[in-house]
Amino acid sequence: MSSPLVSRQVVFADRDVIELAQASVPEPGRDDVLVRVALVGICATDLHLLAGHIGDPFPLVPGHEFVGEVAAIGENAAAVRGLSVGDHVAVEMLLPCRSCARCREGRYNLCERDDMAAGLPFGRQYGVNIPRTVSPGLWGGYAEYLHAPADAIVHRLPADLPWERAVLVEPLAVASRAVARGRVRPGENVAVIGPGPVGLLIAAAARAAGAGRVVMIGTRAQRLGLAGRFGADAVVNSRETDDLAGAVREAFGDTLPDVVIEIAGVAAAQQDAVRLVRRGGRVVLAGACGAAVPVTFHADEDLLTREPDIVPSFLSAGGFEPAIALLSRGEFPFETLVTHRFGLDEVADAFALIRDRSDGVIKAVLDPRTTQKETRR
Amino acid sequence: MSSPLVSRQVVFADRDVIELAQASVPEPGRDDVLVRVALVGICATDLHLLAGHIGDPFPLVPGHEFVGEVAAIGENAAAVRGLSVGDHVAVEMLLPCRSCARCREGRYNLCERDDMAAGLPFGRQYGVNIPRTVSPGLWGGYAEYLHAPADAIVHRLPADLPWERAVLVEPLAVASRAVARGRVRPGENVAVIGPGPVGLLIAAAARAAGAGRVVMIGTRAQRLGLAGRFGADAVVNSRETDDLAGAVREAFGDTLPDVVIEIAGVAAAQQDAVRLVRRGGRVVLAGACGAAVPVTFHADEDLLTREPDIVPSFLSAGGFEPAIALLSRGEFPFETLVTHRFGLDEVADAFALIRDRSDGVIKAVLDPRTTQKETRR
Amino acid sequence: MSSPLVSRQVVFADRDVIELAQASVPEPGRDDVLVRVALVGICATDLHLLAGHIGDPFPLVPGHEFVGEVAAIGENAAAVRGLSVGDHVAVEMLLPCRSCARCREGRYNLCERDDMAAGLPFGRQYGVNIPRTVSPGLWGGYAEYLHAPADAIVHRLPADLPWERAVLVEPLAVASRAVARGRVRPGENVAVIGPGPVGLLIAAAARAAGAGRVVMIGTRAQRLGLAGRFGADAVVNSRETDDLAGAVREAFGDTLPDVVIEIAGVAAAQQDAVRLVRRGGRVVLAGACGAAVPVTFHADEDLLTREPDIVPSFLSAGGFEPAIALLSRGEFPFETLVTHRFGLDEVADAFALIRDRSDGVIKAVLDPRTTQKETRR
Amino acid sequence: MSSPLVSRQVVFADRDVIELAQASVPEPGRDDVLVRVALVGICATDLHLLAGHIGDPFPLVPGHEFVGEVAAIGENAAAVRGLSVGDHVAVEMLLPCRSCARCREGRYNLCERDDMAAGLPFGRQYGVNIPRTVSPGLWGGYAEYLHAPADAIVHRLPADLPWERAVLVEPLAVASRAVARGRVRPGENVAVIGPGPVGLLIAAAARAAGAGRVVMIGTRAQRLGLAGRFGADAVVNSRETDDLAGAVREAFGDTLPDVVIEIAGVAAAQQDAVRLVRRGGRVVLAGACGAAVPVTFHADEDLLTREPDIVPSFLSAGGFEPAIALLSRGEFPFETLVTHRFGLDEVADAFALIRDRSDGVIKAVLDPRTTQKETRR
Ligand SMILES: NC(=O)c1ccc[n+]([C@@H]2O[C@H](COP(=O)([O-])OP(=O)(O)OC[C@H]3O[C@@H](n4cnc5c(N)ncnc54)[C@H](OP(=O)(O)O)[C@@H]3O)[C@@H](O)[C@H]2O)c1
Ligand SMILES: NC(=O)c1ccc[n+]([C@@H]2O[C@H](COP(=O)([O-])OP(=O)(O)OC[C@H]3O[C@@H](n4cnc5c(N)ncnc54)[C@H](OP(=O)(O)O)[C@@H]3O)[C@@H](O)[C@H]2O)c1
Ligand SMILES: NC(=O)c1ccc[n+]([C@@H]2O[C@H](COP(=O)([O-])OP(=O)(O)OC[C@H]3O[C@@H](n4cnc5c(N)ncnc54)[C@H](OP(=O)(O)O)[C@@H]3O)[C@@H](O)[C@H]2O)c1
Ligand SMILES: NC(=O)c1ccc[n+]([C@@H]2O[C@H](COP(=O)([O-])OP(=O)(O)OC[C@H]3O[C@@H](n4cnc5c(N)ncnc54)[C@H](OP(=O)(O)O)[C@@H]3O)[C@@H](O)[C@H]2O)c1
Ligand SMILES: [Zn+2]
Ligand SMILES: [Zn+2]
Ligand SMILES: [Zn+2]
Ligand SMILES: [Zn+2]
Repeated sequence: MSSPLVSRQVVFADRDVIELAQASVPEPGRDDVLVRVALVGICATDLHLLAGHIGDPFPLVPGHEFVGEVAAIGENAAAVRGLSVGDHVAVEMLLPCRSCARCREGRYNLCERDDMAAGLPFGRQYGVNIPRTVSPGLWGGYAEYLHAPADAIVHRLPADLPWERAVLVEPLAVASRAVARGRVRPGENVAVIGPGPVGLLIAAAARAAGAGRVVMIGTRAQRLGLAGRFGADAVVNSRETDDLAGAVREAFGDTLPDVVIEIAGVAAAQQDAVRLVRRGGRVVLAGACGAAVPVTFHADEDLLTREPDIVPSFLSAGGFEPAIALLSRGEFPFETLVTHRFGLDEVADAFALIRDRSDGVIKAVLDPRTTQKETRR
Repeated sequence: MSSPLVSRQVVFADRDVIELAQASVPEPGRDDVLVRVALVGICATDLHLLAGHIGDPFPLVPGHEFVGEVAAIGENAAAVRGLSVGDHVAVEMLLPCRSCARCREGRYNLCERDDMAAGLPFGRQYGVNIPRTVSPGLWGGYAEYLHAPADAIVHRLPADLPWERAVLVEPLAVASRAVARGRVRPGENVAVIGPGPVGLLIAAAARAAGAGRVVMIGTRAQRLGLAGRFGADAVVNSRETDDLAGAVREAFGDTLPDVVIEIAGVAAAQQDAVRLVRRGGRVVLAGACGAAVPVTFHADEDLLTREPDIVPSFLSAGGFEPAIALLSRGEFPFETLVTHRFGLDEVADAFALIRDRSDGVIKAVLDPRTTQKETRR
Repeated sequence: MSSPLVSRQVVFADRDVIELAQASVPEPGRDDVLVRVALVGICATDLHLLAGHIGDPFPLVPGHEFVGEVAAIGENAAAVRGLSVGDHVAVEMLLPCRSCARCREGRYNLCERDDMAAGLPFGRQYGVNIPRTVSPGLWGGYAEYLHAPADAIVHRLPADLPWERAVLVEPLAVASRAVARGRVRPGENVAVIGPGPVGLLIAAAARAAGAGRVVMIGTRAQRLGLAGRFGADAVVNSRETDDLAGAVREAFGDTLPDVVIEIAGVAAAQQDAVRLVRRGGRVVLAGACGAAVPVTFHADEDLLTREPDIVPSFLSAGGFEPAIALLSRGEFPFETLVTHRFGLDEVADAFALIRDRSDGVIKAVLDPRTTQKETRR
Repeated sequence: MSSPLVSRQVVFADRDVIELAQASVPEPGRDDVLVRVALVGICATDLHLLAGHIGDPFPLVPGHEFVGEVAAIGENAAAVRGLSVGDHVAVEMLLPCRSCARCREGRYNLCERDDMAAGLPFGRQYGVNIPRTVSPGLWGGYAEYLHAPADAIVHRLPADLPWERAVLVEPLAVASRAVARGRVRPGENVAVIGPGPVGLLIAAAARAAGAGRVVMIGTRAQRLGLAGRFGADAVVNSRETDDLAGAVREAFGDTLPDVVIEIAGVAAAQQDAVRLVRRGGRVVLAGACGAAVPVTFHADEDLLTREPDIVPSFLSAGGFEPAIALLSRGEFPFETLVTHRFGLDEVADAFALIRDRSDGVIKAVLDPRTTQKETRR
């Protein structure tokens, strides 16, 4: 790196306060990687952060769904990671401590270390809970540059993978983890509840894992209409039936699914999930409903005598490897999920679009290099 | 078998109607075993059956916790099972179909076959849902004789295992399954909630599986007082603390348990179980709370961001092998759990004792050969 | 069934003695199914049986890769199995006892019961070790009719699945078990050694299970040429390289595979398999090399310090469900593997063809209804 | 730390060259821990290292079985690890990179990073492959002080655990991993082959994991005589029988073991292990036989048709937690395995004793604070 760099950044200065700022970009230390962001996806979490629903990590540079290229790299990092300037990379949103019991057993999404993390009990996450005040302040993807220290998990991406396909790697990693948590075996039937962007990716990941039939359950015809392209064999609109269990059973050819994956983020859907699975099946709860929202099951009827495994799936640990493998194959038109693209100065517009689900939005992304809106369908 | 046999039986003729009856005992067919009952344990389930809480299987011969000896055996059964007259045996309460998908994968407690089972969706179970009207009417353990057809799972018991120790095999198999469902690994910390007979056996089974520390959580000092003999390193009385999580954490040496096993049979305990486990731990729900009793968790706070596996454990499938191995070793004074012994004509008295938890009762058993009460402490 | 039936059968009367015979077909008992064979595949095992390499089960009706339709069915079987006359079915080759410890835990390919099985330590298998002298003598698929008693595992096939695709269900079930034994997770790289019919099916099953890259390793260009259609991303001809590990590493993009599945049936391939897998990977040994053929590994170099799991995979238990699910989807041109079709009177010709690998044979099948050769490419 | 420290060290200057040396001990950096060694066990590996059998890591400070107390600690390390000066600790022999794919999935014994490790393909290990020339040169336990950087895995030990019991933590962790790799479930029968110190610890770990029966197989009466104290129910001397399989079957009560764990370190024992396990059982190969020593199995007879899982178990990853839990309980007289204690200047004597198996030696340890021999039985 020859001359001193600056990075444009979106900053959530406080609850409901969006600012544009600049940060100076130091040369990476010997264990560090400096990443230039190519695209960053907007996640529902980002809206919740701005609204102050997820603690008080302000001032914060948001953005955890980013991909980009190596802009500069320390000597040690280059050797250990086998990376050079110009390589395309994805960085996991989690910055695990790599020391605690959870990290050591490979479950680093539950990392117990939170000292950098503004007191939030979630481990350190890019764009979520590392305040900009922590040096060097390059901890979010809504920006031109990003800092990846030794703890960061950096994956190489194929150079020919288009950025609009690559930018889905984080939500697809979430989807892959959900499918892995559900221990979906080839030939097993899988129901997915919630046809948002993550739900569609879960359908694809379940199909890619060899599911027998995949059925998408939702409430909105437009989104259900996309499910077929992402691996669903049938869809059920829960608003259009009085007998959801009956409709689901029929969609699977007179049987209940082996695995149900909930990704709607509402308690009713989690309750449905447990009731729709076959005896002895697996239920993955992946939607975020809100911290203390009550979810209620019927003791012996839903649980004891049906013996389902109920497994929450949190974040993306272990999911990047299968996600990158799947993106690299030609299957599924993942890039068509990116319906809108904005510049860093258009975050408020983008959030409004997503909040209102207007214009058929599925996934909107920011391109830090552009300041001009460009909408794509 | 020389002369025609009759078997005395307790019959639940209808809801709240207990009768004593006799049944004629046919010679076993070539695939069958005739078992003479030595002792049969009284389970809380038996009281619920009599009260009509578990369907309408009447007339029913209750009793599923029985052990005994081979009284007669068909030629084929003798060859296939390697058994002879006089051998001591335990018969699993489950009579699986051995054909359905669940049976084929070794999860026969979820057997999907229910044709003999009075329409109850639980697979066939001795003493629970096979009416006496199904030939030969010897389907319960509150009796002198019992019929074990080809589908029955019959285990040989060591000849020198005392009956009062052996009679705990079924609840210990339930306990062993619960521990297995919790995937307790050596060195892991285990909390057990509910120090009834099954809870005490779970403590012992967890200890035997190599648990690091075992902590028993209960509400009744007398029962908590027994926990130490059955493997618990510490006890917590949830009635005596305002900060259950704090007390449990302390009992484990400033950490939360890796596995929590609930066996209290009340919703509050199931809710506690999920909140007391460490992040990424396992929660086994084994208590029967009642069919549609609501159990409520907090969505993201209890589930998503803590990612526990919540696994109900139903009945005893796969549990008899480890239970018999454990009973056969000298460890744990299991026989002291049998606090009371009754004859077949004293069922009403026995039930009253259990319902009132009077006289320090833990486990009461029936001895079909005696008609005289004999209380032991 | 109106009039008494007879079934034409191929009989291996003794080592190297093939005969055509007839057997009378009794009406099925209440627990039995009578199956009319539509097609039966010829397996390498059948040639070994005739040569006397697999015990002395003569006289034997060979054939375990059969599919067909329900010709008649007992009342009980119809109720329990939910089947009617005319339904298309596949019957697993294994006839498990459903009672022994292995059967009870879902590992019925290791069934310990062998009383009907001519003393062979392999559990009972259609067409392999149940002599024709065991009543009713309908225990092999090289025949018009076949007897399926209560122990048989009968799967319904979709009515619109063409027989030439359906007939691959058993080898595809073997392939599915091998992939399951290898615990292939989505995104993992898989090498398959041995591009025979089973090897090609393993490639497809691994691809269907979400493998990252699949590489086929073989010795014969013609067969390697087919691998691409069955999910392989690259092939390596081990005859054309001095550095097999290097070539394999290159085919995976400079890394060794997570899982290697050997299905060549020669010791050298099994040894390669262990050496080609990455540290901590899984090696599935599925090829049959001969009973006491020595297979040699290097202690610490291959095993201890690389810590691979080495897991043999025997027969098809648990594999029919995923195999049927995969056949039912449109993917992979499975039916093109059936290169030759013969009548029951042409077994000797068919065996010669397979032995010589002439005419590009991959899978040859018998059609019990035809006596005229019809070759298809 | 007030004044500059020096550490006495044993140095393997080259193959067969033992020296005593001193190293200066820097103050620990902010992420580091300085450990004062209390006791260090002598492992067979140490003799192999000196003999030049394990690469060329010279000059090397040997010793990986050490325990001690925190002598000084960096600010960050204290916060993150929750440790203070004086705490008793065990440090795992493995120094994983915490970044590679194997480390991230919790399998850090297969860490792919070897830059510090003198080119040896084993990940970095204290006392094995980090030359003394790597700063600060405190990488082995045959010394007064030892350096534990951020990558080190440091476990707190109970303050009241006697050092002579604590010093067995590393071999007991090896034993615990072997039992875990064997997936020993409560009630399962386990055979252990090789009654050396590690084998005796495996017997205890298997017993602690709830094994049904544990049978020790060995060649030396003196050592077999100790097995009973460490959990074995029976022993078999393979030198005293012509029918090992028969003797083992008898020792288990007419059945073959579910799991066999080999820890003899000779090819014959590994071959026995595979032949002695029941069909579908698990075989753990944990003994080190020498890099390219041939181990030969019989293809279909030993492997395919019996379908055992053959799982090498390498080093101690994941084993320290259960080992510490087990040492902390009163069970098993572990400290009696420490039969001999030497000073740092007596390494040659100690090695001779072990090589000759003289004086009934089981485990010999070094006490860096003493220079006077003190033998204990
Ligand atoms: N586990 C994790 O680590 C993780 C990671 C990322 C995201 N998430 C969570 O995953 C969820 C989905 O994310 P997303 O971005 O795909 O969100 P999204 O766009 O909100 O999609 C959710 C979809 O679920 C539908 N839905 C709502 N209630 C339903 C019901 N009862 N039955 C069926 N469908 C129902 C919604 O329908 P309408 O369109 O009609 O509202 C919507 O289409 C969110 O809760 C998010 O917070 C979790
Ligand atoms: N999973 C299965 O297959 C299976 C098999 C057999 C039995 N069960 C069930 O297992 C449960 C236990 O059986 P059991 O025979 O041992 O019953 P039990 O004698 O009723 O024992 C339950 C114990 O839990 C205690 N308890 C109640 N609420 C509690 C709370 N909030 N926290 C802690 N402890 C609490 C009770 O205390 P008090 O004495 O103060 O009431 C009692 O001592 C029953 O629900 C039974 O139906 C399940
Ligand atoms: N596990 C089970 O339960 C099960 C079930 C069915 C079959 N099997 C076994 O599976 C094996 C394959 O069956 P199949 O019908 O597919 O047999 P196949 O037609 O004999 O195919 C084996 C293929 O492996 C190739 N091969 C031989 N040595 C090789 C090496 N060193 N490296 C790479 N490829 C090599 C052969 O090449 P050439 O053509 O040049 O000889 C041949 O194409 C047989 O051993 C069979 O007995 C096992
Ligand atoms: N997996 C790992 O990570 C790991 C870690 C530490 C150690 N190890 C290895 O584990 C092995 C045991 O270590 P140790 O310190 O306990 O060694 P040890 O003292 O050499 O003990 C091995 C024992 O096995 C006996 N033995 C030899 N051949 C046998 C056979 N055919 N059948 C039954 N017993 C036989 C030996 O008997 P004699 O006394 O008659 O020779 C000896 O008592 C060594 O190979 C060591 O390298 C592995
Ligand atoms: Zn961590
Ligand atoms: Zn069943
Ligand atoms: Zn069997
Ligand atoms: Zn590593």
